[in-house]
Amino acid sequence: MLSGVGHQLRRMASSVSSDARFIFRQWFDRESCTYTYLLGDADTKEALIIDPVIQLAERDAQQVQDMGLNLKYVMNTHVHADHITGTGLLKKLLACTNVKSVISKESGAEADVYVSGGDEITFGDMVVEVRSTPGHTNGCISYVFHAGRRVFTGDALLIRGCGRTDFQEGNSETLYNSVNSQIFSLPDDYFVYPAHDYKGLTVSTVGEEKKYNPRLSKPLDEFKTIMSNLNLDYPKQIDVALPANRVCGLYNLPAALTEKYGDKLVAK
Amino acid sequence: MLSGVGHQLRRMASSVSSDARFIFRQWFDRESCTYTYLLGDADTKEALIIDPVIQLAERDAQQVQDMGLNLKYVMNTHVHADHITGTGLLKKLLACTNVKSVISKESGAEADVYVSGGDEITFGDMVVEVRSTPGHTNGCISYVFHAGRRVFTGDALLIRGCGRTDFQEGNSETLYNSVNSQIFSLPDDYFVYPAHDYKGLTVSTVGEEKKYNPRLSKPLDEFKTIMSNLNLDYPKQIDVALPANRVCGLYNLPAALTEKYGDKLVAK
Repeated sequence: MLSGVGHQLRRMASSVSSDARFIFRQWFDRESCTYTYLLGDADTKEALIIDPVIQLAERDAQQVQDMGLNLKYVMNTHVHADHITGTGLLKKLLACTNVKSVISKESGAEADVYVSGGDEITFGDMVVEVRSTPGHTNGCISYVFHAGRRVFTGDALLIRGCGRTDFQEGNSETLYNSVNSQIFSLPDDYFVYPAHDYKGLTVSTVGEEKKYNPRLSKPLDEFKTIMSNLNLDYPKQIDVALPANRVCGLYNLPAALTEKYGDKLVAK
Repeated sequence: MLSGVGHQLRRMASSVSSDARFIFRQWFDRESCTYTYLLGDADTKEALIIDPVIQLAERDAQQVQDMGLNLKYVMNTHVHADHITGTGLLKKLLACTNVKSVISKESGAEADVYVSGGDEITFGDMVVEVRSTPGHTNGCISYVFHAGRRVFTGDALLIRGCGRTDFQEGNSETLYNSVNSQIFSLPDDYFVYPAHDYKGLTVSTVGEEKKYNPRLSKPLDEFKTIMSNLNLDYPKQIDVALPANRVCGLYNLPAALTEKYGDKLVAK
């Protein structure tokens, strides 16, 4: 097991990873168990953020500044029901960099840029492909970052789970078809980065989820039965989160935030 | 911004990442904010786990099984004071695979294998280098995975912080020298994976911490003053965690666990 100082040369030869082309960060909100993602082009420093949480916008903005990045887009996978998006506040905190908010055309929410399945979003020399993955909501999209073999699935596909389909425009058959045609059609080694995890898992792969997802590895009929028998509680934050998230998270904000950022929270 | 279906060829050409040589997972414990890490050789499937948490040993064991890995080592960076290690329970849950526990010789804890600075741990064709980084405790070690440009720093170096030095064998000057000589001497682009984060950050880099760590970027005298004025509470779990962690987490376990795993918890 212990081999002194051997392996040094072999190690050095293989140590340059092609991941040096891009910057990637995964951030967690312990309150709503939401994952926020940062992707950046290591050369040009252009970057984007996916699914930020308003209470943690300062943390995210600080990270962007520490890494010397130029934030180009703040993108949401859908109109979240469990937390208020940090999109609007991040735009305000990083106002000088001309950040644009992005959401799907089908979401019905306001943003600077609307996307649909098939569109591509560029940052520096990097590209993210938009895939339409409705079912949890009508406007759900997933972002595929081929250069990093990653897919950001929002609530469409979670690690060993999936988003619920019993509110907003939820439809279990639509979700099943979305995941199968748009996510499970990616190569097995693609990393799955979801919008949430409640057990402390941070990543999965397409191959793992096709095999081990206790819902989506089942035939459609069985999946529909599972989804109609979850008996979940009414989402605690939904009545606050939905109206706020339809306008980038700048509507009826929690009192602590309006007090702190009052002058920054006037418009979109 | 939207460029249709372009970039496809360039994307495919650059999509094979050298990270395919190894498997890496980061897992989180929301209770103690502990990060547990899995490293595996993608070819041979030999793997190791760093700093597991006893309450989540089942989750970790399930992940190892789902990924078809052969767990070779369960390693701790030090004798933790804030949670009970999952080492012993993981060994029991995965008994058939002959897992060995690893800790530093200087820790004073029991384990199957003792390591010291300069030693190397092999799993498949991969190597982890042990570096001695005392200061939070005498027995603290960091694990450097050169092929993945990663260092697992335990409590020696946290993201924009560090482990406290006011209990166990804590010594701020020793910690300062450890981080500077053993971690900050690594290339700036090496990823720093700590044992904890309390703000939802998952990773940093050596370069970032050298520049932005509010404690360790300071001169020694200033660092010592900061560390002596933290006025932290007595660690809640320390009186339960220390005796348990000196024997791989199998001593005076929480009642729920002894009831559940009674017959598996007899010996180390």
